[in-house]
Amino acid sequence: MSFSISEIKQAKERIAPYVVETPLLRMPNLDSFLGCQVYVKAECMQTTGAFKLRGAMNKTLMLSEEQRKIGVVSASSGNHGRGMAYAAKVLGGKATIVMPKTAPKLKIEAIKALGAEVVLCDISERFEIAERIQKETGAINVPPFNDEDIMAGQGTAGIEIATQCPELNKVIVPVSGGGLISGIATAVKALAPSIDVYGAEPSALPRYSASLAAGKPVAVEQKPTVADALASPRPGEKCFPYVAKYVTAVAAVDDEYMLKAMKLMLTEGKILAEPSSCIGIGAVMQGLIKVTPEDKVCFFLSGGNVSIEQIAHLDNVTL
Amino acid sequence: MSFSISEIKQAKERIAPYVVETPLLRMPNLDSFLGCQVYVKAECMQTTGAFKLRGAMNKTLMLSEEQRKIGVVSASSGNHGRGMAYAAKVLGGKATIVMPKTAPKLKIEAIKALGAEVVLCDISERFEIAERIQKETGAINVPPFNDEDIMAGQGTAGIEIATQCPELNKVIVPVSGGGLISGIATAVKALAPSIDVYGAEPSALPRYSASLAAGKPVAVEQKPTVADALASPRPGEKCFPYVAKYVTAVAAVDDEYMLKAMKLMLTEGKILAEPSSCIGIGAVMQGLIKVTPEDKVCFFLSGGNVSIEQIAHLDNVTL
Repeated sequence: MSFSISEIKQAKERIAPYVVETPLLRMPNLDSFLGCQVYVKAECMQTTGAFKLRGAMNKTLMLSEEQRKIGVVSASSGNHGRGMAYAAKVLGGKATIVMPKTAPKLKIEAIKALGAEVVLCDISERFEIAERIQKETGAINVPPFNDEDIMAGQGTAGIEIATQCPELNKVIVPVSGGGLISGIATAVKALAPSIDVYGAEPSALPRYSASLAAGKPVAVEQKPTVADALASPRPGEKCFPYVAKYVTAVAAVDDEYMLKAMKLMLTEGKILAEPSSCIGIGAVMQGLIKVTPEDKVCFFLSGGNVSIEQIAHLDNVTL
Repeated sequence: MSFSISEIKQAKERIAPYVVETPLLRMPNLDSFLGCQVYVKAECMQTTGAFKLRGAMNKTLMLSEEQRKIGVVSASSGNHGRGMAYAAKVLGGKATIVMPKTAPKLKIEAIKALGAEVVLCDISERFEIAERIQKETGAINVPPFNDEDIMAGQGTAGIEIATQCPELNKVIVPVSGGGLISGIATAVKALAPSIDVYGAEPSALPRYSASLAAGKPVAVEQKPTVADALASPRPGEKCFPYVAKYVTAVAAVDDEYMLKAMKLMLTEGKILAEPSSCIGIGAVMQGLIKVTPEDKVCFFLSGGNVSIEQIAHLDNVTL
């Protein structure tokens, strides 16, 4: 376990000119809905619409100019790919993004608009195809989470949380492979150790719940979920130890509660966030993470890349 | 012209326990769309979903307990009525809200849910009916804008703007009868006089453009607009002098640009605001208020009371 706050601090300095320090907002009008004092880290307002730019930018800045020209290849459910495509465009380079064909159209189009090449595939094949492209073209394979430079980039959001609002009691972070939560937990525990870090993952893909119970990373069956950004069937081997060490608990949240949470955040909070991003709020609404009216709880809104069409479906969701 | 920053400061102290100090957000990702440094005052995140609570709460707190029990009556396109209904509920009292039957269903239902009585009528009759109810029942008639206590309440948002971000160059404020802009302009010119205050009104109802040209308040024809919250055909007599004195210019914005602005704010800014609230952004998108890349421009997002159904219609709007 060699990864620490020091790499995250270096990443913060490295990426500062390219990312937004997103607001951490106190939202008192949501308190009565969630039973705690509600704060949100509005990473949906990040450039490219998601926190993923932090890791993508950190990694791309650490490559040589020559490496960037040869190009990168990334498997992604969408937001990491958009971050990599943006980094390649801004820093000069090529990017190939391997995405599930079930990814939202909006995410696919945004990546193409940045000039990256998009390869669509079955959701279970994406890592394999990225490796094949790496071998065939010599491109650098930048994984979406299982990489310490990526974790360090995502962890910069944890530095911001601990600095913007050190009086928090809890932070709840969406979880897929674990790149985000391992980075955030490492930063928060170094800077504001009294804050408890919780994770929230889809109940359709409970890879961390299963792995924490097993004491080692294990895979679960690849199943569909509305949380299109939380699609990994397994924890990153490099992320898992930090989650096991620093995270209080990981809740497995039903799709229904993610959609309720998204609707609450939009209609009452007035913030647009993806279903995946609202999973922490869903965890509290489903009663999986207990909170009290005295608790100051920060919900990490990881991204906001949603189409009007997807929003329209919320009409059928009851709060 | 007896109304000044002093009444606004008193209002701020009076309403502080009941309203949210809403965030003033820097949104760098919108700069390239609007050609300036974009800031928003997110009053859509205010309790009741709109700034109108500020004036409603100030006025209701200034009534005696007996007056509150007799009750208030207000003509409103929706948000003022919701503010009055909320104030009556929180402070103990009765409220009757006279609304156009064309008001969004969401606004009507929210007011009923707060326990107020709703009287629906033709949009042109609402002030007359409120007066009749006042005469018949002895209720206190609290108008939506033409009242110095209401103006003082709305002006508290101006104190916040000048305090949260004194380095601004411009503030653009949605305009209907003028209660909000007269309050904000009075506060801003007292506290940060280098900030220019602009207004934006629907081109379908250019009551301030016409009145400023005439040098006195004049009425325009009552016409429909997507800006359901900016429905007044005439300036408030009490508001007009402060707009004439302090406001640099008022732009008359087309419905099309309000909807473009709303879509931009939602899909790129990740904030849900009403069409009426996005009119300042529409004014810049339509080229009616000139801005430069050096300008720090605050767009006042006055409210966020929109249904999922209304959002779904944005699918047909092109940016």
